[in-house]
Amino acid sequence: MKLYDMLLSGNCYKIRLFCGLLGLEYETVPIDLAKQENRSPEFLQLNPRGQIPVLQDGEIRLWDSTAILVYLARQYGAPHWLPLEPSALAEVMQWLALAQNELLYGLARARAANLFGRPWDIGQCQELGKRGLAVLEQRLENREWLANGRISIADVACYPYVALASQAGIALDEYRHIGAWLQRIGRQPGYVGMPGL
Amino acid sequence: MKLYDMLLSGNCYKIRLFCGLLGLEYETVPIDLAKQENRSPEFLQLNPRGQIPVLQDGEIRLWDSTAILVYLARQYGAPHWLPLEPSALAEVMQWLALAQNELLYGLARARAANLFGRPWDIGQCQELGKRGLAVLEQRLENREWLANGRISIADVACYPYVALASQAGIALDEYRHIGAWLQRIGRQPGYVGMPGL
Repeated sequence: MKLYDMLLSGNCYKIRLFCGLLGLEYETVPIDLAKQENRSPEFLQLNPRGQIPVLQDGEIRLWDSTAILVYLARQYGAPHWLPLEPSALAEVMQWLALAQNELLYGLARARAANLFGRPWDIGQCQELGKRGLAVLEQRLENREWLANGRISIADVACYPYVALASQAGIALDEYRHIGAWLQRIGRQPGYVGMPGL
Repeated sequence: MKLYDMLLSGNCYKIRLFCGLLGLEYETVPIDLAKQENRSPEFLQLNPRGQIPVLQDGEIRLWDSTAILVYLARQYGAPHWLPLEPSALAEVMQWLALAQNELLYGLARARAANLFGRPWDIGQCQELGKRGLAVLEQRLENREWLANGRISIADVACYPYVALASQAGIALDEYRHIGAWLQRIGRQPGYVGMPGL
């Protein structure tokens, strides 16, 4: 397996983390967003959206971090990572949606504005991100994992930009249940970190 | 089945459209975002994110339009709406991701700024939305449907905010393949429209 990757990208880290948890080996191809390597004609052939990560697994090529998590879970993971029973699958999907909305357009954009000077309105992004954190904090009040009582790709997808919240200018001190959940994930066999954690 | 719904919401329309295509009956509970009914304590009990749509089906309650589409497809739909083979499932997920990213944070936000005075930067949103449209146009150049050669919830999820692009200040004239795809969807048995289409 080959992962088109950038070390500081939280979306790429979702895949590296999940590969770690599943014990999957892969090689990485570094893509430098600062040099706009993601907009080169060669890269746009791999992913017309011009985004990382991209995964190549034999003949199968996939873009989008959520789609890649879904693929890896179904292809290589135990059923609890992505159960297929309709309501259980939808429950995982709900938290994948939070990861793609409040966390990505809130926390990740605030972080990108802070760290990389991206032109987003930091205050608006932080406000959206904090809404996502409030929902997570409430959800985790009496639960260990986000969906179906087991660790799943929902936890993997939500983890990176929450764990990196300080880089988005948001302190996690008051989010006690989120803090405990981050630690639970950090104790999973095969866990790998990233710079800034 | 009960759908917490707003007529002008493209995300709610995704569910109404899919219920139409599947021939499912449901009742609606109107939620008025202008009156902030989505932030009431009662509604936040249904969905802590304070968003519509929410679906109640017997004991099962779900929020998030994508999660609801996934649930309905698995529970009531033929397999082609959401195939479970790993790479086919991931292919649908890729286009659900486009719907939740470029289309929602691009087209839908530009529309909400235009129609409802939401505080988003219209130019930034339109630029993101046009990126999504370019990817769709290329994808549909030699394909009838977005994923796996069959109509799926990927098409249902992408349809509303693309079809409503003129309300986001974006003309679709130059997107010929998208135009043909919109018409194909409009010809499906059970298709329902919404105001503005």
